[in-house]
Amino acid sequence: MNLVLLEAGELNALGRVLLSGPRAAHIVNVLGATPGQTVRIGLVEGPRGVGTAGSIEGNTVALDCVLEAETPPRPRVDLLLAVPRPKVMRRLWSQLAALGVSRIILTNAERVERPYFDTHVLTPECYRPLLIEGLQQARDTRLPTVSIHRRFKVLVEDELDALSDAGLRIVADPAATAPVRETVSRALDQDRDARVLLAVGPEGGWNAFELGLLDARGFRRIGMGPRTLRTDTACLALLALVHDALA
Amino acid sequence: MNLVLLEAGELNALGRVLLSGPRAAHIVNVLGATPGQTVRIGLVEGPRGVGTAGSIEGNTVALDCVLEAETPPRPRVDLLLAVPRPKVMRRLWSQLAALGVSRIILTNAERVERPYFDTHVLTPECYRPLLIEGLQQARDTRLPTVSIHRRFKVLVEDELDALSDAGLRIVADPAATAPVRETVSRALDQDRDARVLLAVGPEGGWNAFELGLLDARGFRRIGMGPRTLRTDTACLALLALVHDALA
Repeated sequence: MNLVLLEAGELNALGRVLLSGPRAAHIVNVLGATPGQTVRIGLVEGPRGVGTAGSIEGNTVALDCVLEAETPPRPRVDLLLAVPRPKVMRRLWSQLAALGVSRIILTNAERVERPYFDTHVLTPECYRPLLIEGLQQARDTRLPTVSIHRRFKVLVEDELDALSDAGLRIVADPAATAPVRETVSRALDQDRDARVLLAVGPEGGWNAFELGLLDARGFRRIGMGPRTLRTDTACLALLALVHDALA
Repeated sequence: MNLVLLEAGELNALGRVLLSGPRAAHIVNVLGATPGQTVRIGLVEGPRGVGTAGSIEGNTVALDCVLEAETPPRPRVDLLLAVPRPKVMRRLWSQLAALGVSRIILTNAERVERPYFDTHVLTPECYRPLLIEGLQQARDTRLPTVSIHRRFKVLVEDELDALSDAGLRIVADPAATAPVRETVSRALDQDRDARVLLAVGPEGGWNAFELGLLDARGFRRIGMGPRTLRTDTACLALLALVHDALA
């Protein structure tokens, strides 16, 4: 936890918050804070800042917070991801938030198994704390927006334009040879502030119909070389490459 | 499983192997192979090839294998990694093998907890099948060499030169600003076939003494931007960036 995230409603009018639970335990036991020391804090969807520890009693910590003027910008990457199996999805949430995605669009596909949708892992009660964990790791405050779509065709044809304004759309395809960097660089030549929507398919890949729909909606196919990766590994590797190319 | 890996001793003199167990089940149930069909195979530390299914009886499959002439080259990246906690290490093995590392050098560091060394996860019985799983995913045959070192100073000062011949040594440091790509590109300017040794520290980072030792042995500090990542996420992201820069 490199930043302690607070919900806007937790601060009182004087900028003071009383923490108990895991965040307080982290401040006391891991950071070893004593009264008068400062810790990095941030407001969910708001600015970062500094909290000065006041009284520390048992597992309750009072922090007096001073916030920066500016809220950090949202990450420049959106992710369209075919729902992976629950065990994998559970692990991905915090890693996606840490690497930086503005929006997580989860979708059905032919090779997504139906029970993957009927799981606790896709409920806000499960994923929100995991996303917060990833933000606290990466010192970000911008919570990814999550939406879940059971009809791929409707999503891609009718809903996607409203969900993501990214000027560059790319889809990972093991058969493609265009590298991420060159594709992103060309988009940056047109628009220095270009945002990227990255599509990652299910284990086994998109089927031809799905790839055709993505083609028709402007997705460019990009490859990552001869090594075929598991969806979750590919997802993290591609996010690293896209962010690096945007930097 | 995009390639079925066989041990050299499994093939008889005629290139035939009788498989049962998970590989046979995969060939029959996932690939849906019938007699006469071919599947991609490879020999651990040997060439790739093609296996033609002969008889399929119950969960036993006979494959007649034809191997390519050449064994694929070893990946151009070695990894020096401070031992992470067992749950994380268990997940990493297959992903490291899939992304491609020639050698995995696991080390102690001040911020590595001692019990991390006394775990099943660091035994060949545990990690070898996981590495094989990663190779089968990525269609590689070159099994990463694993070594485990409890004394960081001895490792770095006395043993590392013999373990890795990589011409470029880099260490991930959240405070560093040199990007991976530029650092690797400069090494490639000197030697088109340059190999890279990547060092990734424990959660909480290397301490100053450890970083000093790495500096003294030629490691250049590289950064990944303002987002601090968990060790395992950082490890995967950096391997993706290094391979991309080498490609």
